Amino acid sequence: MTKKSAKPAKKAKAAKRLPSLAVVGATGAVGTVMLDILSKRKNVYGEIRLIASARSAGKKLICRGEELTVVALSPEAFDGIDIAMFDVPDEISAEWAPIAAQRGAVVVDNSGAFRMDKKVPLVVPEVNPKDIKKRPKGIISNPNCTTLSMIVAMGALDKKFGLKELVVSSYQAASGAGQPGIDALHDQISKVAGKNLGSVAKDLRGVITDLGPFPAPLAMNVVPWAGSLKEDGYSSEELKVRNESRKILGMPKLKVAVTCVRVPVITTHSLTVHATFSKVVTRKAAQNALKKAEGVLLYDNPEKKEYPTPADVVGTDPTWVGRVRQSLDNPKAIDLFVCGDNLRKGAALNTAQIAELVAAEFTR
Amino acid sequence: MTKKSAKPAKKAKAAKRLPSLAVVGATGAVGTVMLDILSKRKNVYGEIRLIASARSAGKKLICRGEELTVVALSPEAFDGIDIAMFDVPDEISAEWAPIAAQRGAVVVDNSGAFRMDKKVPLVVPEVNPKDIKKRPKGIISNPNCTTLSMIVAMGALDKKFGLKELVVSSYQAASGAGQPGIDALHDQISKVAGKNLGSVAKDLRGVITDLGPFPAPLAMNVVPWAGSLKEDGYSSEELKVRNESRKILGMPKLKVAVTCVRVPVITTHSLTVHATFSKVVTRKAAQNALKKAEGVLLYDNPEKKEYPTPADVVGTDPTWVGRVRQSLDNPKAIDLFVCGDNLRKGAALNTAQIAELVAAEFTR
Repeated sequence: MTKKSAKPAKKAKAAKRLPSLAVVGATGAVGTVMLDILSKRKNVYGEIRLIASARSAGKKLICRGEELTVVALSPEAFDGIDIAMFDVPDEISAEWAPIAAQRGAVVVDNSGAFRMDKKVPLVVPEVNPKDIKKRPKGIISNPNCTTLSMIVAMGALDKKFGLKELVVSSYQAASGAGQPGIDALHDQISKVAGKNLGSVAKDLRGVITDLGPFPAPLAMNVVPWAGSLKEDGYSSEELKVRNESRKILGMPKLKVAVTCVRVPVITTHSLTVHATFSKVVTRKAAQNALKKAEGVLLYDNPEKKEYPTPADVVGTDPTWVGRVRQSLDNPKAIDLFVCGDNLRKGAALNTAQIAELVAAEFTR
Repeated sequence: MTKKSAKPAKKAKAAKRLPSLAVVGATGAVGTVMLDILSKRKNVYGEIRLIASARSAGKKLICRGEELTVVALSPEAFDGIDIAMFDVPDEISAEWAPIAAQRGAVVVDNSGAFRMDKKVPLVVPEVNPKDIKKRPKGIISNPNCTTLSMIVAMGALDKKFGLKELVVSSYQAASGAGQPGIDALHDQISKVAGKNLGSVAKDLRGVITDLGPFPAPLAMNVVPWAGSLKEDGYSSEELKVRNESRKILGMPKLKVAVTCVRVPVITTHSLTVHATFSKVVTRKAAQNALKKAEGVLLYDNPEKKEYPTPADVVGTDPTWVGRVRQSLDNPKAIDLFVCGDNLRKGAALNTAQIAELVAAEFTR
C-alpha cells in the first residue's frame, strides 16, 4: 500500500494511475444501489469490474454511464484489481475476500465475516477514518446497516460530550433482509390491502402464508427479531450493534443495550436512542453538535411536524436525527430518533466512502 | 360507598341489587370493544345503558345478547346509574364526568382529563387495586393505552426486584388514534399496495395524500410522534407514559425515558423496555416472575420463533411478554418486548376490570 509521502516526485508519479475497482455482488439489493452511488459520486477509479455468481454472469448493467458485463466470481476475476468491494453473504466473503486480498486487492467487505476480527478495521469515515491504515490482512470491514444508521450521530455526540451508555431500539426495514425481504413485504401488503384485517389474532397469519425471510407476518405487524439466535436469548443483530458500536467508537467497555425489531417499511432503518454522557447535555447543545456534524442532518422541529420518517429519508445519504430531548430524569442523557437509508449509508455508501479513502492512497 | 363488612346480614341485603352501568361513548372504537367485553365477562350489572352523542342516539347495538338503544348524552341520562364508564375525548369527559358523579354514579374515565388529578386514583387492577377506594370526586381514571401495554408486567417485576428506571420505546398502533386512525391506515395500505414504492424519498408522500389523524404517511412508514406538542420537544404521549407509570406504581421519583413512535399496525401496541432494578435479575428470574404474574402471558421461546407480535396478540386480554434478556452490560437490568391490545387491556378491558371492582362494593 502507498503511504503518504513528503516527496512530490513520488506523489506525481503515483497520481498517474487511477485504481481499478471490483464490485462483488453487483446484482444484489446493495449492489444495485452501489452502481447508482458509483455513478453519482466523484469518479476516482480506472476500470470498474462487476462480479457476481456464475448465475448472473453475462448480465449487462450500467455504471458511470457505461454498459458493463458481469463476470463470474473466480480467483482470476481479481487480476489487475486494486480495490474490491464485497456485498455478498458472510460465507462467500469468508472464502473469497482473502483470495482477492492475496491477489493484491484491498478488500472493503460489507459482510459480517470479518467485522470483529482484531486484524480487520471496522470503519465509518466520519468517525474513525484513520483506522483504514490498520489492515494487515488487506481487508477493511463495513459495519452492519443497523449500527451504521446511528453511529455517525453517536460519534459526533461522543466527541463533544463523552458517551457512557446506549439503550437502542430498532425499527428495521424489510430490505435489511435483501431483495427477498423487499419482495416479501410488497407481496404481503398486496395480500392484506382492502381487507378488514388486524383486529383479530391469527387474521394476518391466515392471509399471509408466505413469510419470506421473516419469522412472522410483516405487513400490518412488527416482529421483534432480526438475524439468528445467539446465547441468552439475544439475536445476532443485537450483538452486532453492541459489538460494532464499541469497536468503531474505540470504547471496548461502552455499555450498550439493544432490542431489534423489524417493521413493515421497505427501506430505511429507524432507531430510538437513549444516550448517556459523562456531562450534562442540554437539548440545545445536542442539537448544535448534531447540526455541525459531518454526515448528519438535524431535522428536529416538532412544532412544524418536522421529524425524520423513512418516507422522507429513503434514497438520501445523511443520518437524519430528530426528536432530540434532554431526558427528564437524567440531565446527562439525551433521547432521540434517528433514520438512515440502510442500503445507502447503511451499506453501499459507507463502503464507497471507505473505498474512496483507499483510492486516495493511490493518487496522492 | 359500601365498605367490606363483617356482618353477613348486611352483605346478604346489599347483594340483592346489581349495580346499573352506563357506557358513555358506546359507538366509538373503544366502546365497540367494550360491548364485546361486557358480553363475554361475568355479568355483574343490572341495567346497562348505552350513551353517545346526539348524532348516534337511536342507534341499536347488541350487548349481553340484548338489543339496546343508544341514548343521547344529557344530565338525565345518568339518572339511576351506579357506575358510568366514559370512553370519550378529554374535553367531553372533563365536562360530563363530574355531572355523572354529581348525580351519584361512580365514574370510570378513560380520557386523559383526570389521570394526573391528585384527587382521582389511576388504577390497574393487577397493580394497585386498593387505590379505587381513594376517590373523593367519585371519579377513577383508566391509564393511557401505551402505559397500560406494559405496566402490568412492570408492576410484577417491580414487586419482585424493585424498579429503579425505565427506558421505553413504543411501536403504537393506528387504532390508538381511534376509528379515524384505523380507517386511515386501511385506506393508505390500499393506496400503496401493488405499487413499487418505498425506495425513493417522497414516493409515499405522493401517493398518500390523506394522512388521517397522523402527521405523516403511516403505511410503509413509521412516525416518531403521538399526541400533542409539549415543552422541551416532548409529545403528550411520552409525558403520559412517564407520569402515569410513576402514579400507578406509587413511585413519584421513578426515572422514566420514553420515545413514542407510531407504526403501521391496526391494533396492539408494542414496546421495548430497558428496565433497571435495585438488585441483580437473571433472565430466568425475570421469566419466572412474569410467568407467575396475573394478567401476563410469557411468550419467550426465540428458539421456536416464539415472541409476541401484534398479529398474535390482537383481540386477546393479557400483556404478552417476550425477548426477555439480562442486559449484557448491567446485571441489574432487563431488556424485553411487550405487546398489549390497546383497545382491550389498553382501554376497554382495564375500564371493565375497574368497574367490576366497584360493582363488587354493591354486592358484598
